[in-house]
Amino acid sequence: MKALEDKIVTEGTVLPGNVLKVGSFLNHQIDCDLIMEMGREIARLFKGAAITKILTVEASGIAVAMGAGAAMHVPVLFAKKNKTANVSGAIYTTAIHSYTHGVDYHVMVEKKFLKQSDVVLLVDDFLANGEALRGLADLVNQAGASLAGAACAIEKGFQKGGDALRQQGLRIESLAIIEKMSENGIVFRKQ
Amino acid sequence: MKALEDKIVTEGTVLPGNVLKVGSFLNHQIDCDLIMEMGREIARLFKGAAITKILTVEASGIAVAMGAGAAMHVPVLFAKKNKTANVSGAIYTTAIHSYTHGVDYHVMVEKKFLKQSDVVLLVDDFLANGEALRGLADLVNQAGASLAGAACAIEKGFQKGGDALRQQGLRIESLAIIEKMSENGIVFRKQ
Repeated sequence: MKALEDKIVTEGTVLPGNVLKVGSFLNHQIDCDLIMEMGREIARLFKGAAITKILTVEASGIAVAMGAGAAMHVPVLFAKKNKTANVSGAIYTTAIHSYTHGVDYHVMVEKKFLKQSDVVLLVDDFLANGEALRGLADLVNQAGASLAGAACAIEKGFQKGGDALRQQGLRIESLAIIEKMSENGIVFRKQ
Repeated sequence: MKALEDKIVTEGTVLPGNVLKVGSFLNHQIDCDLIMEMGREIARLFKGAAITKILTVEASGIAVAMGAGAAMHVPVLFAKKNKTANVSGAIYTTAIHSYTHGVDYHVMVEKKFLKQSDVVLLVDDFLANGEALRGLADLVNQAGASLAGAACAIEKGFQKGGDALRQQGLRIESLAIIEKMSENGIVFRKQ
């Protein structure tokens, strides 16, 4: 998606350790107009897939998921990292390894919000090693729901998580796929 | 806002300890169409206030803030609960006491996203004791920015945090204010 690639080039910063900072528009400050446009693009890509629910994980996945949910008129369910006083009843839970934070964390959704009849689209802001998508897919699997695919804002193509999941049969649409990045520039995969 | 009050009555559950569960549409699963409508209502209420930025706190504030940001065409900045590898540079930080979780937690925003020239609207999903709004207002104050007010989805009017902040001069618009709630029903404040 050209508008996103342009934004990454204009405002993104590459830091050592394969970190791409996009906090000015995606995961700290949110450019709402761009996110809504990204949501419409995700809706276009998955048109006809009969999606009934979008599943993401807090916190930075929520904005992109909201954009897609608003465009598709389906609810967004976000997996929570902590069981809070507001959560009761039966839950599905899974572990996700975070390379950014260097820890495993558990995420959960309430069972009643993920039904066998649901056709689920996973949405996240970043796709690198694929751990978050794997965890979210596990929640869908536990519920016996159908998994229509995944949509990500930015995929770090050089980290191969996305390609590995595609080889396992998961449909993944990333709005921008980075093949190479360094302080000198960013090269996107042609889609 | 009648659509929100109706939704609270239809889908909300009151639990002991003044807990109102609205996980089916607000803070676990998100009803995107309703949230976008709430965002348009917030935009209407603050029309003419020359808002340049919306400030919220992760995670459950993000959806409502996105709805408002999309309607007002201004960026949303969400305060983060943990400093991550994706955050670098100078930050403003403040402590917020969570009655839900029984702990203090620190939230932060990068200084470069909150400028003296900004006119900031605080947005959150719940307003009870007002601790989150107080923390967010402190971040705005540290930045020397202007505080236009706060918009909340659901205010627990009986917990008085909102009224205390109003008496201190903060403009607060809550889309639904609960005066009383129990297993037997919910009474809203007339606005």
